Amino acid sequence: MTDKTRPVLLTGASGNLGRALAPALAAAGYRLRLTDISPFPDALPEGAAFTKADLNDGPTILRLAEGCQAILHFGGISTEQPFEVVLGPNIRGLYHVYEAARRERARVLFASSNHAIGFHERPAGNGELLDADCAFRPDSFYGLSKAYGELMGRLYWDKHGVENLNLRIGSSFPEPADARMLSTWLSYADLARLMERFLAAPRIGHAVVWGASKNPATYWGADHRDRIGWEPEDTAESFRGKVGGKVSGDPVTERYQGGGYTAMDYTRDKPSPKDAFSLD
Amino acid sequence: MTDKTRPVLLTGASGNLGRALAPALAAAGYRLRLTDISPFPDALPEGAAFTKADLNDGPTILRLAEGCQAILHFGGISTEQPFEVVLGPNIRGLYHVYEAARRERARVLFASSNHAIGFHERPAGNGELLDADCAFRPDSFYGLSKAYGELMGRLYWDKHGVENLNLRIGSSFPEPADARMLSTWLSYADLARLMERFLAAPRIGHAVVWGASKNPATYWGADHRDRIGWEPEDTAESFRGKVGGKVSGDPVTERYQGGGYTAMDYTRDKPSPKDAFSLD
Amino acid sequence: MTDKTRPVLLTGASGNLGRALAPALAAAGYRLRLTDISPFPDALPEGAAFTKADLNDGPTILRLAEGCQAILHFGGISTEQPFEVVLGPNIRGLYHVYEAARRERARVLFASSNHAIGFHERPAGNGELLDADCAFRPDSFYGLSKAYGELMGRLYWDKHGVENLNLRIGSSFPEPADARMLSTWLSYADLARLMERFLAAPRIGHAVVWGASKNPATYWGADHRDRIGWEPEDTAESFRGKVGGKVSGDPVTERYQGGGYTAMDYTRDKPSPKDAFSLD
Amino acid sequence: MTDKTRPVLLTGASGNLGRALAPALAAAGYRLRLTDISPFPDALPEGAAFTKADLNDGPTILRLAEGCQAILHFGGISTEQPFEVVLGPNIRGLYHVYEAARRERARVLFASSNHAIGFHERPAGNGELLDADCAFRPDSFYGLSKAYGELMGRLYWDKHGVENLNLRIGSSFPEPADARMLSTWLSYADLARLMERFLAAPRIGHAVVWGASKNPATYWGADHRDRIGWEPEDTAESFRGKVGGKVSGDPVTERYQGGGYTAMDYTRDKPSPKDAFSLD
Amino acid sequence: MTDKTRPVLLTGASGNLGRALAPALAAAGYRLRLTDISPFPDALPEGAAFTKADLNDGPTILRLAEGCQAILHFGGISTEQPFEVVLGPNIRGLYHVYEAARRERARVLFASSNHAIGFHERPAGNGELLDADCAFRPDSFYGLSKAYGELMGRLYWDKHGVENLNLRIGSSFPEPADARMLSTWLSYADLARLMERFLAAPRIGHAVVWGASKNPATYWGADHRDRIGWEPEDTAESFRGKVGGKVSGDPVTERYQGGGYTAMDYTRDKPSPKDAFSLD
Amino acid sequence: MTDKTRPVLLTGASGNLGRALAPALAAAGYRLRLTDISPFPDALPEGAAFTKADLNDGPTILRLAEGCQAILHFGGISTEQPFEVVLGPNIRGLYHVYEAARRERARVLFASSNHAIGFHERPAGNGELLDADCAFRPDSFYGLSKAYGELMGRLYWDKHGVENLNLRIGSSFPEPADARMLSTWLSYADLARLMERFLAAPRIGHAVVWGASKNPATYWGADHRDRIGWEPEDTAESFRGKVGGKVSGDPVTERYQGGGYTAMDYTRDKPSPKDAFSLD
Repeated sequence: MTDKTRPVLLTGASGNLGRALAPALAAAGYRLRLTDISPFPDALPEGAAFTKADLNDGPTILRLAEGCQAILHFGGISTEQPFEVVLGPNIRGLYHVYEAARRERARVLFASSNHAIGFHERPAGNGELLDADCAFRPDSFYGLSKAYGELMGRLYWDKHGVENLNLRIGSSFPEPADARMLSTWLSYADLARLMERFLAAPRIGHAVVWGASKNPATYWGADHRDRIGWEPEDTAESFRGKVGGKVSGDPVTERYQGGGYTAMDYTRDKPSPKDAFSLD
Repeated sequence: MTDKTRPVLLTGASGNLGRALAPALAAAGYRLRLTDISPFPDALPEGAAFTKADLNDGPTILRLAEGCQAILHFGGISTEQPFEVVLGPNIRGLYHVYEAARRERARVLFASSNHAIGFHERPAGNGELLDADCAFRPDSFYGLSKAYGELMGRLYWDKHGVENLNLRIGSSFPEPADARMLSTWLSYADLARLMERFLAAPRIGHAVVWGASKNPATYWGADHRDRIGWEPEDTAESFRGKVGGKVSGDPVTERYQGGGYTAMDYTRDKPSPKDAFSLD
Repeated sequence: MTDKTRPVLLTGASGNLGRALAPALAAAGYRLRLTDISPFPDALPEGAAFTKADLNDGPTILRLAEGCQAILHFGGISTEQPFEVVLGPNIRGLYHVYEAARRERARVLFASSNHAIGFHERPAGNGELLDADCAFRPDSFYGLSKAYGELMGRLYWDKHGVENLNLRIGSSFPEPADARMLSTWLSYADLARLMERFLAAPRIGHAVVWGASKNPATYWGADHRDRIGWEPEDTAESFRGKVGGKVSGDPVTERYQGGGYTAMDYTRDKPSPKDAFSLD
Repeated sequence: MTDKTRPVLLTGASGNLGRALAPALAAAGYRLRLTDISPFPDALPEGAAFTKADLNDGPTILRLAEGCQAILHFGGISTEQPFEVVLGPNIRGLYHVYEAARRERARVLFASSNHAIGFHERPAGNGELLDADCAFRPDSFYGLSKAYGELMGRLYWDKHGVENLNLRIGSSFPEPADARMLSTWLSYADLARLMERFLAAPRIGHAVVWGASKNPATYWGADHRDRIGWEPEDTAESFRGKVGGKVSGDPVTERYQGGGYTAMDYTRDKPSPKDAFSLD
Repeated sequence: MTDKTRPVLLTGASGNLGRALAPALAAAGYRLRLTDISPFPDALPEGAAFTKADLNDGPTILRLAEGCQAILHFGGISTEQPFEVVLGPNIRGLYHVYEAARRERARVLFASSNHAIGFHERPAGNGELLDADCAFRPDSFYGLSKAYGELMGRLYWDKHGVENLNLRIGSSFPEPADARMLSTWLSYADLARLMERFLAAPRIGHAVVWGASKNPATYWGADHRDRIGWEPEDTAESFRGKVGGKVSGDPVTERYQGGGYTAMDYTRDKPSPKDAFSLD
Repeated sequence: MTDKTRPVLLTGASGNLGRALAPALAAAGYRLRLTDISPFPDALPEGAAFTKADLNDGPTILRLAEGCQAILHFGGISTEQPFEVVLGPNIRGLYHVYEAARRERARVLFASSNHAIGFHERPAGNGELLDADCAFRPDSFYGLSKAYGELMGRLYWDKHGVENLNLRIGSSFPEPADARMLSTWLSYADLARLMERFLAAPRIGHAVVWGASKNPATYWGADHRDRIGWEPEDTAESFRGKVGGKVSGDPVTERYQGGGYTAMDYTRDKPSPKDAFSLD
């Protein structure tokens, strides 16, 4: 159902992923509305308009989405921060995005995160991977806001028929930076291709997709990528020589999928007491 | 590990369930700290102190919990309301409760709700019941805040070792009021007994328990009630003659576990478009 | 274009005028959505739903208006109050109402007030009346918020084609209460009939109508009432014997159309310095 | 009544017009208090003091005005922005400015804008110009805040005798930048001279003045400039060769006085539906 | 300098002391402006006007004080409450009161409290009393806000010449209610007489006065009462038979002047660790 | 009781004093937690972690202090600013710091200021110096917030046994900059040594110490420095040749200890009326 007449709203446009996606989607012929709380630092791509807005400002978010076919929601806090900092953009902001989508009968691509499930252990190497219908195991306030976002997508699909794809992004950077990213890396090109497949897909429902490239060392198994017909093409493996030895040395970090977030308190120097418990 | 020397904090003390629990726990010998944003309307039970406080006020919640062995968290908005009304007490407030529990090494009883999973269909009658490890299917902003609360409990258990029991309350009223409650009713007496079992249990971890009496018409199967050794004793069945015929007549309401919440928009007259979709 | 299938949103439903209008419109067959920050104190009329909401909460106001053909906006502060008290409901709230109307292609009936023009002098008795296209002369923060509301209607008509009728209500009470109201009184029955004419009118544009019954002592002349085909039927004159002698004795009050509001500071005991100036 | 002993408060001092006016007025011998929410970026003129302050902070604005003979109010948002962004500085801030003026018996120069009347059509070329007593026709939230400001001036004059001049600035830049500005340009020198005339005038009342230089292509006719004895001296005409051909090509933009603001939604890509309507 | 032409502003008018003072001062011929965040529950005394206002609303407080000769500041929280509850009315509100007084060259009577010095021990009975120039020893957030208020008075006297009398009220009730109040009781009649002396005094500066009747069991010695020529006339002693035996039994409560506040946490059941320390 | 195992929390770490102290304390072997609302601009010292946080965010401040032995509270506004700007960080923030200290049984070093007592006159030169138990004489909103902070320390010591040292800093800069600083200068090295003595001291209680180097021209006499065994080693005198002649020329400034703050209104051009009064 590729439709290039109705615009696409991209939140978080001034962030790293937004800045990678905007020109790629513009080049593919999409009309873009870009928004962020910070000015857009690059030249505006052809056919794109930028409006500075706060995700806390509901009527403005609703208006920005007007007439849009889809919202690519990359806005909000994207690292672990004090709860109060996360609350406005990531919780209230998400509600505004879904209300907008419901009004416009638009679909939502939600930039979720592996930190929504970061307290699952890494696979034992016996081929057992984590499927997308696993239980949430947030590893941080940030990860908790992402789990919340996926569930808001679930609610809006069940109750209002708003289609949404929840992309649990692993690590999306120009290159993998450490050993863990050999499992979790998502290339910008794979991400951009996924956006296009998402926009073109005839039917999505409520979908969850692991946001990682074709990495042999992956942690992740079955998901709903067939609904959009996406397959990653890049692989982290080619960077193994460069980063393969970079590990944290912290046993909690290395045990769980969320890596450093699981061991990290936002106060930075508190060890996780997790290992002291064994019941559950 | 029954310990009656360290106090128990009960939030939402001035609500219906709070008012039922406070005298029951006081009679069982617990020292209670009661709090609510509204004054406590009854005579204070022996050994109980009441402090008026707002769940949005973090330092005060932290202080109220000082020295407590457990927090019974019944506070917050308890019906479907506009998102902005739910946000403060149910999202921010929950964070304050868990921070307090972490600091005190206290356990948390979280008054969750069937509305966190309300978009699961009711059982077909073939004996297949819904287990507590099912996926969340919130049916409202209220239900979504309850799912969020359970996940915050998950995070604080995984990361900080805070034990918590998430009680997915069905319908806790003096008596069942309609046919659905023959499945979902939780008597005040069963609820009070559960609180005592929770306080006495040696080990809990992160547990989820269906909050319903011993109702033959139940929707719900396996959960973690064995961790606290609780079994309900009352049953809704004895009220069947009185309420058995009370059904809504609305097909969405009658199809899903959340009942009216699934069909209800807080604007009250919007039908759910759910039936128009079939993919997921 | 009478259409009784699409609902009508009535804000301020729990106020005096709202409580008079709701049953009248319900009896005329309109589906009503009622809202107010206070609970609706009466039995709900047939076909009416009530939702408690704050005019400051934009997404909720937008949602309440969904699918509505018209918004009858009687909500907000309705007397002179400190500026900060007026700001939220009467300024921000108005924006939410107009955004909602734009989204729904609904028309707006705005309960404006004679206090938007209250510093015009009363007519000299020579038959010269004040026409609706006169300059604004607000007499209070309240009156200023009403002038602002009319201009927001002007903006949304000019820019977005939102039709709106600005009803400059004189004094709408069960009966006139003093001599001034012999000129300004609007009966509840005339008000209710006007609402029905407004809803039925084929075309409105941006209209201003004096909200007064057929009072011989009126201050007011030409307006846009022909656009909706409304004529008042009641008259204050029949109450002259009862209230004709009730005058304030204050020269400023008696000189201007806004009556006591022109002389009144919200601090209640400050005389207006108006008479000390003569230039303009 | 030129009085150089009592200071003059200039808000918005760090903006373009503030930075042009401050040295000009200082050179003319006025004692200046400068304020802005951003630091003053230039060297402080002789006899000027700067205080960083937020227009939302009433007691501070009141204090800054203490002892002043006049407030030149150039502060607040000066372009079209989301409503919520405009509300604080332009609506609440204005109230603080007028309360300050009332307390000090100071006069107010309010930097209003042509966008308060931007939906009036441009003159047909038959010599019929728009007079200052025309109806408001705001073209944006920004323009609406300016109309509100003029009416607050009206209220404070009628009720409290606060003199105020509302300068409906056309386009005040170092040079005109397009064809429309040949009609609307106001040179910095004419602006500075107007300030001095305003400060020197014996009596002002509530005045409205078109803020444009002596442009032959003007849209605007009669106003109250005689009350301050100001006549512009510069003209945009000398720039015709440079900018005469720069037109937008958009029919709405070119039809109305407000130019691009009338066609522009703050979301940037929404056409005005105005032309679809003809009634009013 | 008794002046009955300029009004007196009384904040907290709807509280117990406000309701006692308002009719007394009105009967003495003063023009009163009354304000409170709650409606005035009694009939308005002759010559008094009431305006509902929030102490957080600076411009409104400033306006209410306009033209007043004095502000009797009894408003704000008057018991121990969570810090966040005290902050707005008692800290920010106090600033608004003093700014108003500075503007009006009005004097301030600040209803301070013994809880500003509550951690001084009670006198040993050897005749050594506590003088008003003692160090502050607040016993609660409430008491701390009162110490802050006295120091704000000090600042405004030193820097701006605002005269103020800080009345450290002991216990002002219709009658003493326990043994401690035999030392601390202030009768309503003595309080009313003090107000009149305060208003009549020619010169005050920054004064501190113990707010207690002529109680033989007093804790308090020298103060600045001579500046206003006030002497209490009533005595708590006549109630000794009724209340003499009512003591708390708590050693901390009975040791310090602040009584129960020193031992009381606002969470109500925390003992003071004071006795565990001896250094200071 | 030197304990280098439990961390020390340093607020205001990104300010001038914080940046001087952090490396000094790290070099002395302390584990540091640094926080500020602005990023830490330097390389992190060994053993130090930095978290960006707002002093208004209570739960975060409480968490940052977890496990700490001491809080060195240098955060908040450190110059005279409008009241509303000071309120959040300096009043509410202080409460968060003391709540944290109480919870952790940590001690507090509060960076108080000479401006808490700035309206005391400078010594007459007859050897009479001002002792630390003098009455507060704040000279600004800033100074008032510092007096408030000392009293909060008093309250938490009396009521909760929280030890605190209130360092009334004179002028802490790399070098003295004018004649007054020959009396008030505190070298960074003396400051750093004091911190170490504070951390090492066995017992402190509630102490007040003048924060100045060994300046012969000092204003200040007895204080509680013996409790920590600190003596300054540097002296301002060696800079006399460089700055001895730099005086303000303003008689108020030169008369009081607070210097320019006593004469300065935050509006910058208002003389102090102090000299017009002589009573007190």
